[in-house]
Amino acid sequence: MARYDFASDNTAPAAPEAMAAIVAANSGFASGYGSDTVSARAADLVRGLLDADADVRFVTSGTAANAICCATLCQPFEAVLAHEHAHIATDETGAPGFFGHGLRIAGLPGPSGKIDPSGLAAPLAAPDQPHWQSPAALSLTNATEYGTVYSADALQALIAPVKARGYGVHLDGARLANAAAAGFDLKAIKTLGVDLLVIGGTKAGMTPTEAIVLFDKSLTRRFDARLKQGGQLPSKGRFYAAPFIGMLEDGAFVRHAGHANGMARRLAEAMPFRINHPVEANAVFVEMDEARLAALHAAGWFVYRFLDGSVRFMCSWATTESAVDELADALRRIA
Amino acid sequence: MARYDFASDNTAPAAPEAMAAIVAANSGFASGYGSDTVSARAADLVRGLLDADADVRFVTSGTAANAICCATLCQPFEAVLAHEHAHIATDETGAPGFFGHGLRIAGLPGPSGKIDPSGLAAPLAAPDQPHWQSPAALSLTNATEYGTVYSADALQALIAPVKARGYGVHLDGARLANAAAAGFDLKAIKTLGVDLLVIGGTKAGMTPTEAIVLFDKSLTRRFDARLKQGGQLPSKGRFYAAPFIGMLEDGAFVRHAGHANGMARRLAEAMPFRINHPVEANAVFVEMDEARLAALHAAGWFVYRFLDGSVRFMCSWATTESAVDELADALRRIA
Amino acid sequence: MARYDFASDNTAPAAPEAMAAIVAANSGFASGYGSDTVSARAADLVRGLLDADADVRFVTSGTAANAICCATLCQPFEAVLAHEHAHIATDETGAPGFFGHGLRIAGLPGPSGKIDPSGLAAPLAAPDQPHWQSPAALSLTNATEYGTVYSADALQALIAPVKARGYGVHLDGARLANAAAAGFDLKAIKTLGVDLLVIGGTKAGMTPTEAIVLFDKSLTRRFDARLKQGGQLPSKGRFYAAPFIGMLEDGAFVRHAGHANGMARRLAEAMPFRINHPVEANAVFVEMDEARLAALHAAGWFVYRFLDGSVRFMCSWATTESAVDELADALRRIA
Amino acid sequence: MARYDFASDNTAPAAPEAMAAIVAANSGFASGYGSDTVSARAADLVRGLLDADADVRFVTSGTAANAICCATLCQPFEAVLAHEHAHIATDETGAPGFFGHGLRIAGLPGPSGKIDPSGLAAPLAAPDQPHWQSPAALSLTNATEYGTVYSADALQALIAPVKARGYGVHLDGARLANAAAAGFDLKAIKTLGVDLLVIGGTKAGMTPTEAIVLFDKSLTRRFDARLKQGGQLPSKGRFYAAPFIGMLEDGAFVRHAGHANGMARRLAEAMPFRINHPVEANAVFVEMDEARLAALHAAGWFVYRFLDGSVRFMCSWATTESAVDELADALRRIA
Repeated sequence: MARYDFASDNTAPAAPEAMAAIVAANSGFASGYGSDTVSARAADLVRGLLDADADVRFVTSGTAANAICCATLCQPFEAVLAHEHAHIATDETGAPGFFGHGLRIAGLPGPSGKIDPSGLAAPLAAPDQPHWQSPAALSLTNATEYGTVYSADALQALIAPVKARGYGVHLDGARLANAAAAGFDLKAIKTLGVDLLVIGGTKAGMTPTEAIVLFDKSLTRRFDARLKQGGQLPSKGRFYAAPFIGMLEDGAFVRHAGHANGMARRLAEAMPFRINHPVEANAVFVEMDEARLAALHAAGWFVYRFLDGSVRFMCSWATTESAVDELADALRRIA
Repeated sequence: MARYDFASDNTAPAAPEAMAAIVAANSGFASGYGSDTVSARAADLVRGLLDADADVRFVTSGTAANAICCATLCQPFEAVLAHEHAHIATDETGAPGFFGHGLRIAGLPGPSGKIDPSGLAAPLAAPDQPHWQSPAALSLTNATEYGTVYSADALQALIAPVKARGYGVHLDGARLANAAAAGFDLKAIKTLGVDLLVIGGTKAGMTPTEAIVLFDKSLTRRFDARLKQGGQLPSKGRFYAAPFIGMLEDGAFVRHAGHANGMARRLAEAMPFRINHPVEANAVFVEMDEARLAALHAAGWFVYRFLDGSVRFMCSWATTESAVDELADALRRIA
Repeated sequence: MARYDFASDNTAPAAPEAMAAIVAANSGFASGYGSDTVSARAADLVRGLLDADADVRFVTSGTAANAICCATLCQPFEAVLAHEHAHIATDETGAPGFFGHGLRIAGLPGPSGKIDPSGLAAPLAAPDQPHWQSPAALSLTNATEYGTVYSADALQALIAPVKARGYGVHLDGARLANAAAAGFDLKAIKTLGVDLLVIGGTKAGMTPTEAIVLFDKSLTRRFDARLKQGGQLPSKGRFYAAPFIGMLEDGAFVRHAGHANGMARRLAEAMPFRINHPVEANAVFVEMDEARLAALHAAGWFVYRFLDGSVRFMCSWATTESAVDELADALRRIA
Repeated sequence: MARYDFASDNTAPAAPEAMAAIVAANSGFASGYGSDTVSARAADLVRGLLDADADVRFVTSGTAANAICCATLCQPFEAVLAHEHAHIATDETGAPGFFGHGLRIAGLPGPSGKIDPSGLAAPLAAPDQPHWQSPAALSLTNATEYGTVYSADALQALIAPVKARGYGVHLDGARLANAAAAGFDLKAIKTLGVDLLVIGGTKAGMTPTEAIVLFDKSLTRRFDARLKQGGQLPSKGRFYAAPFIGMLEDGAFVRHAGHANGMARRLAEAMPFRINHPVEANAVFVEMDEARLAALHAAGWFVYRFLDGSVRFMCSWATTESAVDELADALRRIA
């Protein structure tokens, strides 16, 4: 039987806390488009999580959420600086350019998914000229695509020169829960200069939902119209808010992510292949040739080769110790 | 206490069949982006509902679904013909122009939300000229925004001249269930020349989900990339497919819509205000002045004045006889 | 032989002053993209014409200039208010929506191409709501599409409530020269709250060129990148600037327009058909049935039926008295 | 005095043949938007130049022309393959993504501006998947950005596998005249599978104008509406067509380019710095450090450092032998 346990963290089902909250929210009539009490309660919990007075919206797609944030911060004739392997740059079918009418994602290098701060200087210093798309924003990801985690200080070092030029900052938190479980202080975000944050619900173990957090509340003006035009203002908004209630009320959001991170460490410890990136969150990237990857597929374990050539193993809230051990056995057989 | 029962058909919770299906689907790991077995099963059921060999995708937003269909059938320098009060023309914040990069919705008149066939002739006959956006597609809605229902013959009369010119056809079925419950034969759609159909799950009583049906399978090429770029290819696709399983497997889809239509008839029978459009589906539109609408609001019943000046009452799967009777009492008191 | 004299004011050749300036500018090497001395000189002359400290750019297309102005002032999820028969609304193939990524042109009524001030109140007062595109800017046209001319006071009355809400203002001056020749004070524009003005060179008798005037200089930031991305930053910029030098240095700009306006008056005086709009600039709109229009075409005179059903006759700098008289004779024969 | 002679080939004035044709075309009234007899005559001459039965349009901007071609051949969720240093990829402010609503330019490597054929195989073979933008077209440039020239055979080798997959082909001929003067057979283009060609007038010594050649005439349907919406359907079309008449009637188009190429060779022969790319057309790229480039600027010669780190010298129809010799002297002094 095909095993998708480690293919991604979105192959997992929703956690019981999320499902219970949806079932609980599914009662009676509610006003539409996010104006309901469930959405209000969930937004309060998000503000509590971040200890921040910010506006919060719940949307259906992380791809759209990121793209809408880019389009909010950046004109079509400008660029968003991002790690060259950021999800927005490589895995979202050009959604930022679609939602942003041609805006450019300017890729920056850096090891293990983290932007090398020294690479920021040149694009920020380049004088505006009409023949290319000058930067208007920085997009960061925490935890990164390679399962590493920025500290608040590391983010601050990247953000400060960007804000000094008056540019915007977007934080893609598709795996923010994993970063938090790895020690990243969510309450520090409000001090960093992030304008727009996307908190991933889906990969954190919810049914599909993402929260857009507008730290810069001036951006909230007509933001709902922007969401509606982009297909991201759900009429039955409570179904996108409720999972956040279930996961935030009792701490399951970070607790589950801590489990996922732990499963990645367990896998790393048993891993017979060379590990290519620090295992700080819920991913293990390893060196594996095509023949061995084919053998792993043949054994029923579906995982993918990533942009850097590594094979990626993702853990989630639903990953079990026994699954890790089974996979480790399989890996040892083909190593 | 505020009553949203009649404000829209999306203020209702999800029906038990939909919720049960979601809970049932929430088990084990599943491959992503609609490649899972739940999505496959749901697509089969949609094909069965329509008795058609078509491709099916499940997305999160009716607004996005409609806009993506328009963009699939129409270039930016072209126009989609639609009723002047169609949802895509008046209630989606210009989403077709956003997803379609400036494409125009060309509004056509007609009573009670139905396009007057005689109004089609002129735009179809107008010669192409470079200064305006010539039509490339027709968008129809069934049931209409005014709660009326096209027969298959009526749709055929509108579609035939459009197909004769080689243009595309989109059918917005946000309330297709209500049309079906009113006697519209869903199995006839495949004979009508519809290229792209959106079946509304949300208003039919599901958790948020919509099905895009590609009758013209040539349009399926790279359609998933189109969806992904537009933020409409959910990673955990089973949560958008499952409600269709729950609602289609045992006929709840049309059965619940029949209940909603029945509640609208019950309300119409008790209605002390003049009814402005035939009550064929789940809506009742009435003549009501501002003072009386304010009195109704003051009594706790939230309903809205519509584009034609009528006040709209929507029923849903969850509308109860007693709620209708309570509302009717309230209406009689202010009439 | 076919006569296009009265078909439009863009069927005329370029005036000798414009051509002489191009020939004069065509000497030696020049730096590119508007950084040359010819462009600088022309910008000075435009500032002098308007008695305003504004930034000026020379572009190739009035359609693009207007669309880029709209996109500068208005987000995709917003709307530009304009007369329902404004050129941007009816004759530019949806260019504002294309350059503005789905922005809406919201048409306002008013006699003879002028917006009725009373029609502005409702859209300006409507509360923001996410389901429709709220206004963000007002677009005006002077002289209007119907050959009428706003006074500065009339513009002020329309602009004041718009600026009071913080919205932007665009003035389409495709026929600004004709307005000036009719008495409109160009030096008053700077006091009116116009943010972006397009001065038509083409219809004024130049080779193709339009000037964008940025009264709000904060909009100039990265505007050249916007122009370049939109195909409107000509490398050999001097060829778009030079005609303005030729036409502004000696007053030919307004003088030629005065001639065009005079020819329209001459035609109006001889006109055997009912005139539908005040003849204040260079156009005469008349009531004419299809048979008579066909007869006129058969006689070799190409003119067009306009949006309001009138047949339109346009005069230009190149229209001769004898041509007017010939046309008047032809009209009398078919009247 | 600042010298722009070698900064670009668009710093030159227009050639006498082009100017004479414009002056000649500036007579009498003409129908608008490319329907005039001057435009028809110029299109005939372009067809003659290419010995091809193709549709021809004259537009104002090479950037827009290229971007519109990309948008014609490629959907927003697709990609255009191009050399990584192609003008559309690096020097047009993201215009293809703007006109193409997010389409991606996928850069391919290759020496001296020519795509390495071996680099095409991987993107063409990659299976469609929804998370990235699959290729839909190939864009080629001849002469290239580095002043090298593809032979017809070399183009054929790149185009054949692309057409085999049913994808489109765009040829950016901003310097097609220089390629022709270097021996590239313009009459061979029609056999190569090029769908859309842009012939540069501006860099060839005309006033601003570019010709779009539609070899695939099925693409002409509603193309004028596409141009109009994109601000590229000039009302006074004769001014964009006339220069082609002047330059094609007597062979000046290729003759002048031959002169420009010869000047580049003359400069190359005298060049004291290392030349980085074969000098096959009108450009010389050399190795020069910052101090020496600054010295050159200080001596009044404006030239630019290019993407590959070279300093670029461009020649044009207007470059004189004495200017080349003066420059060579200056270079020797700082070498």
